[in-house]
Amino acid sequence: MKHRLDELAKSVAGRLVGDPECLIDGVGTLQRASEGQIAFLASGLYRQYLAQTAASAVILTESDLADYDGNAIVVKDPYLAYARIAGLVADEPPRRFGVHPSAVVEGGCHVADSTSIGANSFIGSGASIGENVYIGPGCVIESGAVIGADSTLVAQVTIGRDVTVGARALIHPGVVLGADGFGLANDEGVWVKVPQLGSVRIGDDVEIGANTTIDRGAIEDTIIEEGVKLDNLIQIGHNAHVGAHTAIAAAAMLAGSCTIGKHCTIAGGVGIGGHISVADGTTITAMSMVTSPIRESGVYSSGIPLDTNRNWHRNAVRFKKLDEISRRLKELEKRFDKVKNKG
Amino acid sequence: MKHRLDELAKSVAGRLVGDPECLIDGVGTLQRASEGQIAFLASGLYRQYLAQTAASAVILTESDLADYDGNAIVVKDPYLAYARIAGLVADEPPRRFGVHPSAVVEGGCHVADSTSIGANSFIGSGASIGENVYIGPGCVIESGAVIGADSTLVAQVTIGRDVTVGARALIHPGVVLGADGFGLANDEGVWVKVPQLGSVRIGDDVEIGANTTIDRGAIEDTIIEEGVKLDNLIQIGHNAHVGAHTAIAAAAMLAGSCTIGKHCTIAGGVGIGGHISVADGTTITAMSMVTSPIRESGVYSSGIPLDTNRNWHRNAVRFKKLDEISRRLKELEKRFDKVKNKG
Amino acid sequence: MKHRLDELAKSVAGRLVGDPECLIDGVGTLQRASEGQIAFLASGLYRQYLAQTAASAVILTESDLADYDGNAIVVKDPYLAYARIAGLVADEPPRRFGVHPSAVVEGGCHVADSTSIGANSFIGSGASIGENVYIGPGCVIESGAVIGADSTLVAQVTIGRDVTVGARALIHPGVVLGADGFGLANDEGVWVKVPQLGSVRIGDDVEIGANTTIDRGAIEDTIIEEGVKLDNLIQIGHNAHVGAHTAIAAAAMLAGSCTIGKHCTIAGGVGIGGHISVADGTTITAMSMVTSPIRESGVYSSGIPLDTNRNWHRNAVRFKKLDEISRRLKELEKRFDKVKNKG
Repeated sequence: MKHRLDELAKSVAGRLVGDPECLIDGVGTLQRASEGQIAFLASGLYRQYLAQTAASAVILTESDLADYDGNAIVVKDPYLAYARIAGLVADEPPRRFGVHPSAVVEGGCHVADSTSIGANSFIGSGASIGENVYIGPGCVIESGAVIGADSTLVAQVTIGRDVTVGARALIHPGVVLGADGFGLANDEGVWVKVPQLGSVRIGDDVEIGANTTIDRGAIEDTIIEEGVKLDNLIQIGHNAHVGAHTAIAAAAMLAGSCTIGKHCTIAGGVGIGGHISVADGTTITAMSMVTSPIRESGVYSSGIPLDTNRNWHRNAVRFKKLDEISRRLKELEKRFDKVKNKG
Repeated sequence: MKHRLDELAKSVAGRLVGDPECLIDGVGTLQRASEGQIAFLASGLYRQYLAQTAASAVILTESDLADYDGNAIVVKDPYLAYARIAGLVADEPPRRFGVHPSAVVEGGCHVADSTSIGANSFIGSGASIGENVYIGPGCVIESGAVIGADSTLVAQVTIGRDVTVGARALIHPGVVLGADGFGLANDEGVWVKVPQLGSVRIGDDVEIGANTTIDRGAIEDTIIEEGVKLDNLIQIGHNAHVGAHTAIAAAAMLAGSCTIGKHCTIAGGVGIGGHISVADGTTITAMSMVTSPIRESGVYSSGIPLDTNRNWHRNAVRFKKLDEISRRLKELEKRFDKVKNKG
Repeated sequence: MKHRLDELAKSVAGRLVGDPECLIDGVGTLQRASEGQIAFLASGLYRQYLAQTAASAVILTESDLADYDGNAIVVKDPYLAYARIAGLVADEPPRRFGVHPSAVVEGGCHVADSTSIGANSFIGSGASIGENVYIGPGCVIESGAVIGADSTLVAQVTIGRDVTVGARALIHPGVVLGADGFGLANDEGVWVKVPQLGSVRIGDDVEIGANTTIDRGAIEDTIIEEGVKLDNLIQIGHNAHVGAHTAIAAAAMLAGSCTIGKHCTIAGGVGIGGHISVADGTTITAMSMVTSPIRESGVYSSGIPLDTNRNWHRNAVRFKKLDEISRRLKELEKRFDKVKNKG
């Protein structure tokens, strides 16, 4: 389907420059876009490709327009406008096909007529599947789970018993919601399982990346608020609480009972300790280790920057003497001052 | 089902305080429990909620009893007693339903009559499934695998060929046991696969969290001893050996041929190098990097604590000069001593 | 099947020592091999087991031959020769069985006659499955995906729409290729999804470990070149490009748009930042954090070595003063020099 450039500009409240009737039927990068495609310029890194682009139109800022004389949509935030326009011109909605004959839907479920359930998927008794939900092939929805309207479970997703997922969720393959939390008591060296009796509650408009796991709570529920975006291979422990519109990148680990504020950005590989709270609007850089509460919004980091193995090793062995170095420095300062004062 | 408080107290060898006939049919937290529920107090953090709790009874220690005048079970370890009591009053056993018609069970399997096999699961030829095993929907048990009695594979679990799992295992969705170890030889820059011919052997009473992977051994087997508890998204490489009653938290990485002792506690995100051995009873804190053997039990750590990005950056750049700092300090000490001695 | 030792020696261009007619039907370690098995010695750690081995033959180097008087195959690289010989004598090819009746193959697919498709697997419309491909139980191949000849998808693998996989791939359970990349634009605090319109292209001879995830590109494709070997639980973000014959160990994280060279070795738990490039032939040690480009081949590291928790803590708190320590040292040097010069 082709879209007129003026309509696309209007859809993002952008200013049209050039031919309003230019037809767009796809997206591309500045470097490789071809006729009929729209590209965007959101970073100075790519400005070099602007003049020669073969894109039929470009989304850019007012200040970048000076370097370009083709069709354009001028906006404040070209990346955001691109996201919206790409959704219009290029994103394909999942196919609708009803309930596949190989799917197993147990008795006592509520499955809306508009629901699609893919090949070899399983819906347990008492589950409730909302309007226009797409459940791809190989999914398992255990008994009592609730999936909100317009949600998509791409394939091979596992939703544990009684877990609730809000509307417009997008859940990627291999995600496991509602496995038992890691609760153990110790009886003279032997671990005794603490039954995990809470559930998982996922708000509206949440996206969950491939192979991410969110455990059910021990007594109360693990909670992911609305608008949260989770990347792949993330671990979220029991009774964690992730505030609305927080984004968490791949392989982050949130231990049990941590509380992450709203509008946080947590980079890949970050670990957050159990029972730790993180203030609203906090940014944590990649691979940081969070073992104390973060009470004030800001950007936080930890870790050691990369070096050649030879240099790193030389410095790393000194780390074990850092306290000693600090004490020796202080001692030398004192001795020097003493001599000086005498002097 | 309702339980009398005196019976629950007896089940954990606790001292009953208050009404022996008080009926309990669920559990709750001190803050949110309602009538009929039992709560517990195991950490000073929650003592503030004790006086006002609406729980019908509380599990606590003798010393906390002073602050509370309701029904109670007095024990030394309230968390352990809670684990046991929650198992009695609130945990639901998985449903039993025989072999689902959509399950595929190849010829030549041994499947006990009491086994449940869920929708769309697959049992390969020559597999052996013990009494009262529950295999949820979407599982794949490859040929020759053995699952011990009373084990539960929740859903979407993959057990590779010839892998053996002991009795009373609890294996969560997405777990993969017996994928090939990462064995490669190099032929002038091109990797040649080293066939992975060992298997995986899992002892009795092991729990394995969602999306955890345990690879088969190269020649001999990868071994997880009895009572080991594994959280989610853990990687255990080929020929690793994890000792009995060790607990490992989420996203830990055990490289090939490492040997972890018994009764260890390994926190989330810890990495243990190949061929490293770790002594019995060792504790390793979160995100630590273990590249040398740990020969003595104790608590071990590594990593850099979180700071504001600005402060962290200022210090992190100095890390690359740590060896130089150390040498300059030593030099200055020498020069000072020399002057002093002359002085 | 039994193999003559002289034939095995010939297959790896090795020198035969001892009985050419010695029959080999399996492999074992030096310590535990039994009659009929061949072992290898590739590391000094195991030389102690050479004299007493019960193996019928040993693969070793010329220099180790002095300590051994049994049957042998003498080569330069015993581990490489072992890999090849183990492939001949011990590795079992997956069974071939055609399309299982419970598999769902949608219309409009190209499935070669020699393809095996396991129980409860799903092949979407327009997918193309090459000659001799083995697709195990519980796999999902979405529409338009292409799987090259002689590839093996062990079980429970998910291949997203339009993803292409080369010839001779070996893909382990739980792998997800082609989930959406983590692309988000921010509209006054609310995340807007950036449609992920690229795909994933995997070259020939690639192995991908259990539960690893490789996301589709945002506009163009995520690319894994030929001969790449990936371990378990690895995350590869959208538009990453991994060069030929690079090996990446478990739980590594490659953020979006990073470019890894050819013939790199990346150890477990390494994190590589977005848009970072890494030179051909680079080695990165375990759990390193890569936030700047690596322009020259070499061995690189970061991180803090393990210590007792007590010592670690003492030093870690000083890390927050490292910049101050450095400045104070410089100041003291200056003051000392000043006094000295005056002196």
